[in-house]
Amino acid sequence: MFYIGVDIGGTSFKGGIVNSDGKLLFSFKFPVNKNNKPEETINQIVNAIKQLLKDNNFRKEDIVGVGIGAPGMVDSVNGVITFAGNLNWYDLPVKKLLEEGLNLPVRVTNDANAAALAEAKFGAGRKYNSFLMVTLGTGVGSGIVINGKLYEGNFGKGAEFGHSLLVMNGRECGCGRKGCLEAYASATALTKDIEKMMNMHPDSIMWDISKEHGLIDAKVAFIAAQRGDKYALDLVDAYVSHLSEGLLSYFNTFRPEAVILSGGVAEAGEYLISKIKDYCQKQLYGLKFAPPVDIVKAAIGYDSGKIGAAALFME
Amino acid sequence: MFYIGVDIGGTSFKGGIVNSDGKLLFSFKFPVNKNNKPEETINQIVNAIKQLLKDNNFRKEDIVGVGIGAPGMVDSVNGVITFAGNLNWYDLPVKKLLEEGLNLPVRVTNDANAAALAEAKFGAGRKYNSFLMVTLGTGVGSGIVINGKLYEGNFGKGAEFGHSLLVMNGRECGCGRKGCLEAYASATALTKDIEKMMNMHPDSIMWDISKEHGLIDAKVAFIAAQRGDKYALDLVDAYVSHLSEGLLSYFNTFRPEAVILSGGVAEAGEYLISKIKDYCQKQLYGLKFAPPVDIVKAAIGYDSGKIGAAALFME
Repeated sequence: MFYIGVDIGGTSFKGGIVNSDGKLLFSFKFPVNKNNKPEETINQIVNAIKQLLKDNNFRKEDIVGVGIGAPGMVDSVNGVITFAGNLNWYDLPVKKLLEEGLNLPVRVTNDANAAALAEAKFGAGRKYNSFLMVTLGTGVGSGIVINGKLYEGNFGKGAEFGHSLLVMNGRECGCGRKGCLEAYASATALTKDIEKMMNMHPDSIMWDISKEHGLIDAKVAFIAAQRGDKYALDLVDAYVSHLSEGLLSYFNTFRPEAVILSGGVAEAGEYLISKIKDYCQKQLYGLKFAPPVDIVKAAIGYDSGKIGAAALFME
Repeated sequence: MFYIGVDIGGTSFKGGIVNSDGKLLFSFKFPVNKNNKPEETINQIVNAIKQLLKDNNFRKEDIVGVGIGAPGMVDSVNGVITFAGNLNWYDLPVKKLLEEGLNLPVRVTNDANAAALAEAKFGAGRKYNSFLMVTLGTGVGSGIVINGKLYEGNFGKGAEFGHSLLVMNGRECGCGRKGCLEAYASATALTKDIEKMMNMHPDSIMWDISKEHGLIDAKVAFIAAQRGDKYALDLVDAYVSHLSEGLLSYFNTFRPEAVILSGGVAEAGEYLISKIKDYCQKQLYGLKFAPPVDIVKAAIGYDSGKIGAAALFME
């Protein structure tokens, strides 16, 4: 059997046909026109899926269902995108609209949840029953897998680990609260910290690296730190302590078997992960009596949103 | 059918026979002698249970199983008390020892988990699928119920919500970390804050109330605040903001349907709860798009540890 997975992003929507081994066979990608009404974008998605099936000689009967990963707050029980700020969508009944357009069953979840499900079924999460997936990108997204299943909270609106507290009365967060993890541990936050540090220290080699690299992003700090730049090391240490403290709260409360890191910052790989491990091992509640938590990098990259959305029908 | 529940505390162990409606029929209570070897205490528990059955004309065949709620870190999968600081117990195979002594099946969980299970089956949690129970006492204990079942984490060592971060690099916590919720929101922490505030302000009516009351405990601040004492009001407001920020992190990550509060501080009841509701409603991620989280007081009091332990066999 085959499955369709669609990943709706802030700038594009991507979709594809996925087989039961989690392999993406055929795919499409379109830019989102933010001037379009949401119903027009949904219509575009319907047409893109119909075209994809036609182009590759699939019949509707070959498809088990269409899974959707959407940004923002999703009511996965009713298949409604409650609120997607980047797209300016409110209370959009995506499941209903797509089912009418496609005459196929549709399920909807949050994009970070879809990525977590992809890792659970086909990636770094296969060996774990319960894990937390954290996406360190524009924001800090998260997906929770418990006993092999997505845990989506009441009305499917859970798993906003990025909006757990890190610093009471700390940095302003986009959500309106102060001191959320996202305000310290997103790639966006780290990039701002790098810019600030660079402006304070014209002698930092981060200047050279960002020139080589063509832009200032999270990578600049990790490369410079590995080359011994003390300012970059300070940035990395501060980043590690913030992210680790956030993770420890989750570890102590939930004792997952593992945390899986993805997104731009996770590209720093073993250098970052070994520092997080060091920090967490010293601070975990129960110390030597506590079961260890594995910290690993996501195994599926760019396609995880589509594959995970398709996997909503593989349970 | 009937069930036995035992609540092992730092100073006493209590047990009883519970029916399938969660009613405690007959019970015992003994002080824990800390000079005893753990095996001696286990032996005492075995004898107490045998006596309880005999005194009340129960046969072993009437009993489905013996549930144990124990303090500290418990490996509920293997029925081992990994570490109970107050009792000085390490890696004690409670399940094995009690099964040998009683010839009845035994299950073991953490005491806060047992209390959460009691609420789930027979108390304030009956109307919810998923909730967090928080005990505001000597420490901050917690139990997590997801889809009507206890969630105990990897090896059953989870649910230490009291050791989630509140203030990075903040107050020293008993667990060795800094800034844990427990260091701000336990009855112990609040009592220390009250003493400090009283010593700074001899004009506070908390002096009179603690004299009436015979001691300084959490209640002193709540009574004085309701009578308009500005120092007590400051204490209560600070306490509410700390506890609420801790709860918000959990709400945003897990979207439970409810949080159930128990323990000494929760005795402040609706006065405290309405303040927490106000704080959380203004700060919850997603604001009006977020499903509300009920905040309620535990319905079962003193016996919840025994009833919840017995309920380990009622699934």
